[in-house]
Amino acid sequence: MISQPLDKQLPHGVADLFFNDAARKRAVERTLADTFARWGYSEIIPPTFEYYESLAAEAGPQLREEMYRFFDRDGRTLALRADFTIPTARIVGTKLYDRAMPLRFYAIGSVFRYEEPQAGMRREFTQGGIELIGAATADADAETIALAMTALRAIGLADFRFTLSNAAYLLATTRDLGLNDADDSALHDAIRRKNSPALKRLSDSLNIDATHKRVLAQLPTLYGSSDVLNRAECVNDDARAAIEHLHDVLARLKQFGFADLVTLDLAENRGMEYYTGMMFEGFVHGLGFAVVSGGRYDNLINHFGPSIPAVGFAIGIERVLIALRSRGAIKATIAPDVIAQEYGTKVELARAEGRIIETDILNRNENDLREYARIRGAGEIWWRDGQKELLDADERG
Amino acid sequence: MISQPLDKQLPHGVADLFFNDAARKRAVERTLADTFARWGYSEIIPPTFEYYESLAAEAGPQLREEMYRFFDRDGRTLALRADFTIPTARIVGTKLYDRAMPLRFYAIGSVFRYEEPQAGMRREFTQGGIELIGAATADADAETIALAMTALRAIGLADFRFTLSNAAYLLATTRDLGLNDADDSALHDAIRRKNSPALKRLSDSLNIDATHKRVLAQLPTLYGSSDVLNRAECVNDDARAAIEHLHDVLARLKQFGFADLVTLDLAENRGMEYYTGMMFEGFVHGLGFAVVSGGRYDNLINHFGPSIPAVGFAIGIERVLIALRSRGAIKATIAPDVIAQEYGTKVELARAEGRIIETDILNRNENDLREYARIRGAGEIWWRDGQKELLDADERG
Repeated sequence: MISQPLDKQLPHGVADLFFNDAARKRAVERTLADTFARWGYSEIIPPTFEYYESLAAEAGPQLREEMYRFFDRDGRTLALRADFTIPTARIVGTKLYDRAMPLRFYAIGSVFRYEEPQAGMRREFTQGGIELIGAATADADAETIALAMTALRAIGLADFRFTLSNAAYLLATTRDLGLNDADDSALHDAIRRKNSPALKRLSDSLNIDATHKRVLAQLPTLYGSSDVLNRAECVNDDARAAIEHLHDVLARLKQFGFADLVTLDLAENRGMEYYTGMMFEGFVHGLGFAVVSGGRYDNLINHFGPSIPAVGFAIGIERVLIALRSRGAIKATIAPDVIAQEYGTKVELARAEGRIIETDILNRNENDLREYARIRGAGEIWWRDGQKELLDADERG
Repeated sequence: MISQPLDKQLPHGVADLFFNDAARKRAVERTLADTFARWGYSEIIPPTFEYYESLAAEAGPQLREEMYRFFDRDGRTLALRADFTIPTARIVGTKLYDRAMPLRFYAIGSVFRYEEPQAGMRREFTQGGIELIGAATADADAETIALAMTALRAIGLADFRFTLSNAAYLLATTRDLGLNDADDSALHDAIRRKNSPALKRLSDSLNIDATHKRVLAQLPTLYGSSDVLNRAECVNDDARAAIEHLHDVLARLKQFGFADLVTLDLAENRGMEYYTGMMFEGFVHGLGFAVVSGGRYDNLINHFGPSIPAVGFAIGIERVLIALRSRGAIKATIAPDVIAQEYGTKVELARAEGRIIETDILNRNENDLREYARIRGAGEIWWRDGQKELLDADERG
């Protein structure tokens, strides 16, 4: 969901990719796939569209509103997938619930969300992420965060910082307040914006007891290093368990050498209607939005089948590509190694060794072929008479 | 477009892929991408949906009817891409027409066509193919066919045969007959089905002159090796040029060592409303439909911009996967190399070397972890105490 220039031939929010832009995107996707695979994740490929009613399950009102819907010719409503988490939950809940757990899946591909034209956001964008299913442990949460960090490093984004929060702590802290939806929403809004005056005003006007008042007032300060977990006050056992869980997750992350890259932010409640526990976002320098976000969603799969805990994340690949552009990382070039006049065995053998060889199919004369090779950034020309001509490096485009 | 079992959770014609099925598909796609890249092709990634009016351009009534259409919220009609050739033609015609030619692009991904439920065909299926743009030479046609053959070999399908025809020969042969659409369509139907009695009946009833009658009567016999080109009668210079062109294409294919794998079939006219010259299809043993089809389409790009000749093909990846299944080719496994109790540096180093390592996030006891490793088909267990246990090969799942 990245702003982009207007293209009159195309609807808002979709793009044509070719040449180096396409190569860079595929290089990122391959690196992500290889990284996920080495951690034991295998690919899951849900359909591009399926029944709207499946995708809308537990999707939250905003995501549901953003889905591209259309009618199948038998009259049922279809929708383009808006993420990979919901289709994966459907597949696990209906087809894979009796397999040995955990299941580790990754998915990389387009997802589709309608965005207002003024927002200038992508409507087709690319996610690469994982779902770790069947484990509610701190180890599972830590693996998820560590894999997100490892994946960002693998694609050349090493200067990240992650924020970590826990929906379960906020839920435990606010669930006994007996607020109606509007007040609850106003309260969570003030919490997210770390707006202490508004929080105090709401606490006073809503007749919240002294203990809860104190805990709510503390929330905007629960931001920083692991010390936050020692300071956090808990109104009940569930809140204590949520803090204890974050403690364990951080301890595991320390073993990975990743704990210092995490900032706790217990007031963060983005996505709380979806996540049930640990939530995180990852940011890189110079980019105002998260390149990765994820968390635990233990109540999603049971919409489709048995109750199975799960945790996952999605990396926004267009966002990553923007960050990489300014860093000069991920080299991907489409320049051929060789332009060859003659084809046959020699060319085929070199291709089998992985060299990129274009043959001249326009029967160009010597000057024209040399000019073409220069434009294409080729390293060598193989002439018909067997001569190999090296092209100057600084002649390469 | 392959028949498939019914899945009640999903609309007709789409599928969930996971485990080895997903891994095999991606292995085929990667091999195709790598093969295309070595021949100097770079990827082009058009959007999944765009304006229907763009995609419908030159699409032919059947393809147009099969397109998935829906409305953008500003009221314009969008459609899911039904192939990669039309979006590629749009991109070249509007954005790349002034680049050095030829342009070589490949595309791999989902395309979408509505098929009747009874047909049991895929509605989302995967194409992997190329477009070679800006060259009308026999060399360009020969490269296209040779690359299709090389790609099939690379993915483990070596037992292919290709049929080769030329839309230009049929067009030249029938264009002066002055037939109305219905008669023309009946004639082409009889030609395609090599129905000599029907051809004779039509020739007689339509008052076709003696020369054309003789050439039409010969068409069903113009099937076989290169000898066909010596036998083919020509009613005009364009027909002669079309035969001469096929001659040149075959001569180039001989240099690739591929000429013996081609059967000429001058009565083949599938896709003639689209193709303007050489057309081909590739078949493998035991599969009743083509795994690859392609041809020259010199009148497509000028719908979007300048007139630029082009030739290309698409491999049907689901069809290829069916063929590979019966051949045991393309090994793709998702079994991990190692299940590790302990994580940290040792595991990270092994992953960096490309090994697939799952860590135990459920804190299983010894027996349970061994059982899990067996189910997952793992090669080793790395225990917490540093012991490495090799698992019997025949214990692997």
